Amino acid sequence: LVDLSRSAPPSTVGVLGGQFSLSADRVAALQNEHGLSEDELLSMLITPASELARPRISSFHVGAAGIGASGAMYLGCNLEFARLPLYNSIHAEQFLLVNALHCGERGIRKVAVSAAPCGHCRQFYTELNCAETIRFSFSGGTYSLGQLLPMRFRPSDLLTDPNTPLLLDPQCNPLELTPDAKAKVSRLASTGDDAPLAIAAHAALEQARTSYAPYSRCPAGVAIVAEDGSVHGGGVIESAAFNPSLPPLQTAIIDAVLDGMPTYTTVRDVVLVELEGGHVQHAGATRAALEQIAPDARLTVFHVQWAEASKG
Amino acid sequence: LVDLSRSAPPSTVGVLGGQFSLSADRVAALQNEHGLSEDELLSMLITPASELARPRISSFHVGAAGIGASGAMYLGCNLEFARLPLYNSIHAEQFLLVNALHCGERGIRKVAVSAAPCGHCRQFYTELNCAETIRFSFSGGTYSLGQLLPMRFRPSDLLTDPNTPLLLDPQCNPLELTPDAKAKVSRLASTGDDAPLAIAAHAALEQARTSYAPYSRCPAGVAIVAEDGSVHGGGVIESAAFNPSLPPLQTAIIDAVLDGMPTYTTVRDVVLVELEGGHVQHAGATRAALEQIAPDARLTVFHVQWAEASKG
Repeated sequence: LVDLSRSAPPSTVGVLGGQFSLSADRVAALQNEHGLSEDELLSMLITPASELARPRISSFHVGAAGIGASGAMYLGCNLEFARLPLYNSIHAEQFLLVNALHCGERGIRKVAVSAAPCGHCRQFYTELNCAETIRFSFSGGTYSLGQLLPMRFRPSDLLTDPNTPLLLDPQCNPLELTPDAKAKVSRLASTGDDAPLAIAAHAALEQARTSYAPYSRCPAGVAIVAEDGSVHGGGVIESAAFNPSLPPLQTAIIDAVLDGMPTYTTVRDVVLVELEGGHVQHAGATRAALEQIAPDARLTVFHVQWAEASKG
Repeated sequence: LVDLSRSAPPSTVGVLGGQFSLSADRVAALQNEHGLSEDELLSMLITPASELARPRISSFHVGAAGIGASGAMYLGCNLEFARLPLYNSIHAEQFLLVNALHCGERGIRKVAVSAAPCGHCRQFYTELNCAETIRFSFSGGTYSLGQLLPMRFRPSDLLTDPNTPLLLDPQCNPLELTPDAKAKVSRLASTGDDAPLAIAAHAALEQARTSYAPYSRCPAGVAIVAEDGSVHGGGVIESAAFNPSLPPLQTAIIDAVLDGMPTYTTVRDVVLVELEGGHVQHAGATRAALEQIAPDARLTVFHVQWAEASKG
C-alpha cells in the first residue's frame, strides 16, 4: 500500500543518482560543469525532491533542497501516513534537516522549498544553532527566519542554561540501560535468532544519547530493523513550542527512507529506548502508529536511566 | 496526579467568577464600572488565564484572553499531558479558539497572550474565517497574522473549492452511523446501565458532523462521560499544515475543562465517532493517550459513513 520506492524519474537520475544528498565535491563539480550558481543548483533539485514525497493523505507533494555548512546539498520531501492522525506527518523541511543531521552537518546555510514553509516548520527551524543566519528561498524570494517568523518564541524562552547545545550542535545525553534492560540485551545478544534485536538496541541507545531533548530532558531513540537485516535509527528532536517536535519513530523512518527502504511493511523489528518513568513517553504512541503502517513489526522497549557519573 | 481544579486564585475570582468566559453584557458592565478600555480588560485577564494552565511537562504557564465578534471575552491556557509525546499538548491560543467555537462565536477580533505565539499557533489561526482581520497583542505590541506569519501557507493552497467554510464558519458534514453502529447504539439506549454511552454516541456524532476537516475529509468527534454523568465533546480541527491540527480527544478535553472537570481520572467513558476506513483514523492514538491520562476510561468507537443523500 505504501510505496516508498526511491527510484527517481529518468529526468533527474542524472543529477541525483537515486541519492538524497550530493557531496560537497559533487556540488562543486556540477556547478563547474554546467556553469550553475549555488542558488540555481538548489532550485533545480526542488522538483526531483518533491517527486520522492509520499503524501498519502493530501496528495500535495513538497520538495526541499538545502546546502549545509560543509558545502554538501540535502533533499527533503514530505511523508504522510495513511490511517493515522495528521500530527504524525513529516514535512519536507523536517526531512531535510534530519537528512543533514544524520550526515553529520553542523549547520545549514540555505533551504529552497517548493511551497511557503508553514508556521510549524518555521518554529521547528528556530531550534537550529544557525537560526540567525539560515535563509529560505520560495516563491521567488529569499528570507531570514526573522522575516518569516518575527518576534518568535525561542529556545531561550524556556532554557535556563545559555550554554545548552542547540539543534545540529553535538548532543551528549549520558544514558545507560537499566540493569533489567542490560540483562535482557545481553541475553538477546547470546541467542542467534535475536542477535539483530541486540544490535538494534545498541543503535537505539546511541540515538537516544545523541537526541535533542533539552525541554523535557527525556531523550529517546528508535532503531528499525528491516527484513534484509539493515538497521536504521533516529532520535527525538524537540521544539520549544512542543507540538512541532519530531518523535523518534519519525526520525528513524526518515533514516530508513534515506537508506532506500522500499515500504514500511518490510519493517520486522522496532526498538524504542526511552527513560524509565519519564515525563514524556513514546511507547504507546509508537505502538499505535506501527499497528497502522507496519502491522507485522514487533515493538520492543528498553528503558534507560541517567548514568551514575552524570547524577548530582 | 493531574489536578484540573478550576478554582481561580482569590485575586481574580471577582472578575472571572471561576468561568472561562465573560458575556458581552458582563464585558460592557466591567468596562463601564471600572472605566476600562477593551484592551485594558483583555490585558487584565491574561494572568488569571495563565493560572488555569496545567503545564505538566514544561511548568511554563501561558494565558490568553480574546474578544469574539459578539463582544464576549474568552480565556485560554495551555494543557500538557504527562507521559505522552509532546504533540499531544494544547496551546493557550488553541484552547481559547475552541472555547469561543463551543460558545458559538463566528469570529475573533483580538487575542492577548502572555508570550509570543509560536509558529504552530500562528499557522493554526490561519484556518480562521477572520484570519485577515484578527489581531494579536503580546510584549507590548499589536500585530496582524500577516505581520506574524508573512507569506503564510494558507487553506487556499490546498482547498480547490473557494467556497469551503473556514474555521468558525458553520460546518455541516452529512454523516450517519453505519448500520452496525446504529444497531449497537440502539441496543445500548435500551439497557439502563449503558444509556449514558448511547447519549455520548449521539453527542460524538454531532461533534463529528460539525467538525472542521476540509483537508482529509475525515470528520471525527469525541464525547467524554465523567463519573458524575456529565458529557463533554469536541470535534477534530484540521490545519492546512496538517501537524498543528487538534485531534478530537483534545477538543473534548478542552470542553471538559471548560465545564469544570477536576481531573482526567474522573473520565469513565470516551466515545469516538469516525469514518469507517478513513485516510485519517484516531482510534489507536486516542486509546494510547487515554492509557496514560485516564487509565480507567473505557473507549468505544462507532463508525460513520457519508449519508446517502450526500453521495454522488
